[in-house]
Amino acid sequence: MNIPELRERHPEHWKKAAAIRMLAIDAVEEANSGHPGMPMGMADVATVLFEKHLRFDPTDPKWPDRDRFVLSAGHGSMLLYALLYLTGYSDMTIDDIRRFRQLGSPAEGHPEYGHASGIETTTGPLGQGIATSVGMAIAEESMAARFGRKVVDHHTYVIAGDGCLMEGVSQEALSFAGRQDLSRLIVLWDDNGISIDGKVSLSDKTDQKARFAASGWSVHECDGHDPDDIDRAICEAKATGQPALIDCHTHIGFGAPTKQDTKGAHGSPLGAAEIAKVREIYGWPYPPFEIPSDVLSAWREIGARGKVTRAEWTARFEKLGPGKRAEFERVMAGTLPKKLAPALAAFRKEISEGAPKVATRKSSEMVLEVINAHVPETIGGSADLTGSNNTLTKDLGTFDVDSRGGRYVHYGIREHGMAAAMNGIALHGGCIPYGGTFLVFSDYARGAMRLSAIMGTRVVYVFTHDSIGLGEDGPTHQPVEHLAMLRATPGTYVFRPADTVETAESWELALNTGAPSVLALTRQNLPTVRTRHTRQNLTARGAYVLEEAVGRRKAILIATGSEVEIALNARTLLERKGIGTRVVSMPCWELFAEQDEKYRKSVLPAGPVRVGVEAALRFGWDRWLFGERGSEKKADFVGMTGFGASAPIEQLYPHFGITAEAVAAKVEALI
Amino acid sequence: MNIPELRERHPEHWKKAAAIRMLAIDAVEEANSGHPGMPMGMADVATVLFEKHLRFDPTDPKWPDRDRFVLSAGHGSMLLYALLYLTGYSDMTIDDIRRFRQLGSPAEGHPEYGHASGIETTTGPLGQGIATSVGMAIAEESMAARFGRKVVDHHTYVIAGDGCLMEGVSQEALSFAGRQDLSRLIVLWDDNGISIDGKVSLSDKTDQKARFAASGWSVHECDGHDPDDIDRAICEAKATGQPALIDCHTHIGFGAPTKQDTKGAHGSPLGAAEIAKVREIYGWPYPPFEIPSDVLSAWREIGARGKVTRAEWTARFEKLGPGKRAEFERVMAGTLPKKLAPALAAFRKEISEGAPKVATRKSSEMVLEVINAHVPETIGGSADLTGSNNTLTKDLGTFDVDSRGGRYVHYGIREHGMAAAMNGIALHGGCIPYGGTFLVFSDYARGAMRLSAIMGTRVVYVFTHDSIGLGEDGPTHQPVEHLAMLRATPGTYVFRPADTVETAESWELALNTGAPSVLALTRQNLPTVRTRHTRQNLTARGAYVLEEAVGRRKAILIATGSEVEIALNARTLLERKGIGTRVVSMPCWELFAEQDEKYRKSVLPAGPVRVGVEAALRFGWDRWLFGERGSEKKADFVGMTGFGASAPIEQLYPHFGITAEAVAAKVEALI
Repeated sequence: MNIPELRERHPEHWKKAAAIRMLAIDAVEEANSGHPGMPMGMADVATVLFEKHLRFDPTDPKWPDRDRFVLSAGHGSMLLYALLYLTGYSDMTIDDIRRFRQLGSPAEGHPEYGHASGIETTTGPLGQGIATSVGMAIAEESMAARFGRKVVDHHTYVIAGDGCLMEGVSQEALSFAGRQDLSRLIVLWDDNGISIDGKVSLSDKTDQKARFAASGWSVHECDGHDPDDIDRAICEAKATGQPALIDCHTHIGFGAPTKQDTKGAHGSPLGAAEIAKVREIYGWPYPPFEIPSDVLSAWREIGARGKVTRAEWTARFEKLGPGKRAEFERVMAGTLPKKLAPALAAFRKEISEGAPKVATRKSSEMVLEVINAHVPETIGGSADLTGSNNTLTKDLGTFDVDSRGGRYVHYGIREHGMAAAMNGIALHGGCIPYGGTFLVFSDYARGAMRLSAIMGTRVVYVFTHDSIGLGEDGPTHQPVEHLAMLRATPGTYVFRPADTVETAESWELALNTGAPSVLALTRQNLPTVRTRHTRQNLTARGAYVLEEAVGRRKAILIATGSEVEIALNARTLLERKGIGTRVVSMPCWELFAEQDEKYRKSVLPAGPVRVGVEAALRFGWDRWLFGERGSEKKADFVGMTGFGASAPIEQLYPHFGITAEAVAAKVEALI
Repeated sequence: MNIPELRERHPEHWKKAAAIRMLAIDAVEEANSGHPGMPMGMADVATVLFEKHLRFDPTDPKWPDRDRFVLSAGHGSMLLYALLYLTGYSDMTIDDIRRFRQLGSPAEGHPEYGHASGIETTTGPLGQGIATSVGMAIAEESMAARFGRKVVDHHTYVIAGDGCLMEGVSQEALSFAGRQDLSRLIVLWDDNGISIDGKVSLSDKTDQKARFAASGWSVHECDGHDPDDIDRAICEAKATGQPALIDCHTHIGFGAPTKQDTKGAHGSPLGAAEIAKVREIYGWPYPPFEIPSDVLSAWREIGARGKVTRAEWTARFEKLGPGKRAEFERVMAGTLPKKLAPALAAFRKEISEGAPKVATRKSSEMVLEVINAHVPETIGGSADLTGSNNTLTKDLGTFDVDSRGGRYVHYGIREHGMAAAMNGIALHGGCIPYGGTFLVFSDYARGAMRLSAIMGTRVVYVFTHDSIGLGEDGPTHQPVEHLAMLRATPGTYVFRPADTVETAESWELALNTGAPSVLALTRQNLPTVRTRHTRQNLTARGAYVLEEAVGRRKAILIATGSEVEIALNARTLLERKGIGTRVVSMPCWELFAEQDEKYRKSVLPAGPVRVGVEAALRFGWDRWLFGERGSEKKADFVGMTGFGASAPIEQLYPHFGITAEAVAAKVEALI
């Protein structure tokens, strides 16, 4: 539908949509930076969605049963900010929008979760929103199975662009969502045929509708500028038993005389001359950032409706028994059951006494048996490596179309999709996601893992086969740089436990931080090194003295994970020669860095020789070897210097010189 | 077709295929590690492909016009090793296969490029093979356009499994290949319905044929155990004008009495009892690793045919003019035109004199104008950020269906697919790929970039917008950990040039190394800091003294890229106060680490205070700040401590304290 028709046939709708468009245009112009084309193109769809379908209450943005709205095409952020302001979210003011993309404004370049309410997830890296929304839909189904449809009964709506659909992660997301019949997931595709380089046809001719249908989606279509047609398509999409794609035929930069339907409308201000003409075409004589009161109050009325819907929900919620209500509120608040901590402490005590020799991936499974038994909100899974990641515990049940109460997700060979879905599960609330793959394949999940870190989602990445210790699979499967890559990522806790006790401590910390955690776990068996039970969680300090020097302390060995055993053996060799050697286990660099200087120096005092031991690259280690009054002349490292090789583990450690003898020799050479 | 039928109707085929199967079974059993199921399932398809279609000559594995064979399902490596041995590749012996997965054997867990001839690319991380093959097909078309179909006329065949098709990168690869009508790309899908967790249906119900068709592929089907049907399907696939998918219906672990069609056949030895039964079922009484002479000679005959085909090709090749032949040989050898070096030297001289103030992404474009004019084998591109990455130079032309001579590829919003395709272009030979995106989106390409590093492919990653300097787009677009992540990756050169001169030097080095290179380039303008022309490429040393202290040297500022300007300004402030300050520009850590100790110490002598400056995290920097007789007490760093923010660049650098004043203050605090 063209603008004259639209204005004539749907004057009220037009004004509401025009308000969004003009706010986007003027904010981008004022910032002299941003993306006006997408909000101009999708304003009609967004207006119909918010006016006729979306369940939300600006006065209670965290209302658990609200619909989730995800702007996967995050560069169109002004579309979202305009909607938040117009519908009455108190923390998105007209001044915030006036300060679009300026330091301190919640109206940032791309939507940043937590910077303003109503922003359900951080988007911008293309494809992430659509993949994250799959997790929201999983959580919705899981919560509904636990607490009933009376109190959990919402949809997840996504606006995605051509770029989102071209990113590979979108295929992982849609094929998984199709397999799971996530019927409350509705994707509104901004089908404008334009990308940054020009026409989408420059690089793609995919029939997207056929592609989605091939994975079991119901597929719909509409004129993205015809309110009635948009409404019809959304109604149809909600009525199906499958996830739904709505192909919204839109014009990027709708109404811009020279820039509509061109890449020129995508990522830069329209310019004063063009904007002046747009105001005429829109019939919008008002100055920038001024919304006429009738339009604003029309929008505010839409926002106000949520109160009623929410009140009805609250009435239904009150009808749940007090126990169920309390449990619902507990999981939505993200607090853990009180019984978990003592159960884990008891588990650690038992392990310290029994001192089993198992791989830490198996340790993790043993810990999960305790956690999953006490924490009904965990949702585990693996990217098709269940038996290798040891992520499945008994009685979890499979999350599937006909068993939404199941708590184990078969994500398929989709590491990136799994990581993004876990972000969505955590963001939705009520569930705690963990998922496994090999540490080396964190490469595939980086895009979503970085968003976990930026948003601080409580996601636990269970990464097994964490070194050359995996053996025969060879270099492509043996991580050497990944610990450095993950430790270098802000807001992420990387745990590399040395045994079952440290694994239990790491898991406990992972569930208690407000941030993503990585557990790097071995394929090979390791002895229990923590045979003296402590009530305190020693891993919480990041690093601690595992074994003290017998005689005068001349050396400190710092090790993580599977190399702690090697350090202990090296210590034995050195002590035999009368070289007093302390062994420091350092399961989590980030937590150790957070300790006060006094503690750090008590673990790593100046003076003794320091040798680090880790079956990975040295990159990043110098901080602990040289730092805090360590000295280059008295520091060395035993680890990898390049990629691994294909051979049994018994051959690989000696081949790469990662042995107790090598560690001892380095110490002797330095003292 | 079942085994009795197959043995009866196709006895000769059966024996050849059985040889592959038994070698795989026995090698995995001997190694007590590996994946027998896939070779057992795909042996019939592979036999027909190698016997009836594949153009190859084991006596000249690098013959330029050979068909490329890519085993995307790399875990089935024994399928490939068996074929290489049976067809007569001299560097894959029966003893190598006997030592499958043992240290030093070229028969590694997964196929490793360069470890044995006939291995066209390293595979194992799922989806990489199919995505890499797209690049091989691009290079084939490009070379054919340059040198003619008489000498460039081959296919790329891929064997892909369900896992390859589930990985998102496969979507990026297939949708791009479909758009480009890469008709010489034929994917043989091992459709056995089994993944590691169990049935593929556990996690996917995608109609793969419909999915490929939706992106313009021709789709075919066959009984993967019926030689005639396989042959028919391959003939049909070769006859189409589009890339072709052949859905090969196979049985994993074909013929294993208890394990066929189960996940039990996928990733572990069958076991002695099962194998004994398999020998009966196969009618294969021979001991492990013994191939009866009639079967071996039948296979060797197939291998020997290549000589004839290659001789015919050589005759046609001789008919090219001597100039064209020499050029063909030059590009296949990967040597650069002699005129490039002087042209780049002249460019650097001109720049040093003119001292333009431009963004290094623009510098890169200026350098590329010189390179692309002199190096006709470059193939540039971008993941839909052409105008931002400045990767397109004049007269390159667009590589497209009807313009294969074009040298610029619109990869679409497919960073991962682009990186994998560039690996394929480099592996094919005759072309030098470079491609652009934002540095932060290297996250999306990690899977393929790690393979670039493992294989040492000459791929140039043009990563622009390399810090908070990109401004308003905010945290999701501002890399802070990526330099650390890339520097931590072995076998990768990371260049962060400070100006146009260093950019030219970096580009020259990138084209001359036998390894992948990353160019981290700015969005914002930078002054020319190298105003004194040197004939020597100073970036080749990794780091060098840019400005020496005037008075007694009390401080050394170490900076990269856009922060070199800040270091120079800090030096001015410090020298004013009589604090002798040296500025070291360090565009490439890896190259500096390769220099001898004498040079390194001449650049970073012991004694003076050292302050590092980089708009990124400190992670990894301690090596240069504390190392080689630096000292913690006299070292500091100015950079980022977490994620960025959305604001104009003028606000961001002061906001994060990355200023000349801050650097000078750190120095004064330390001396």
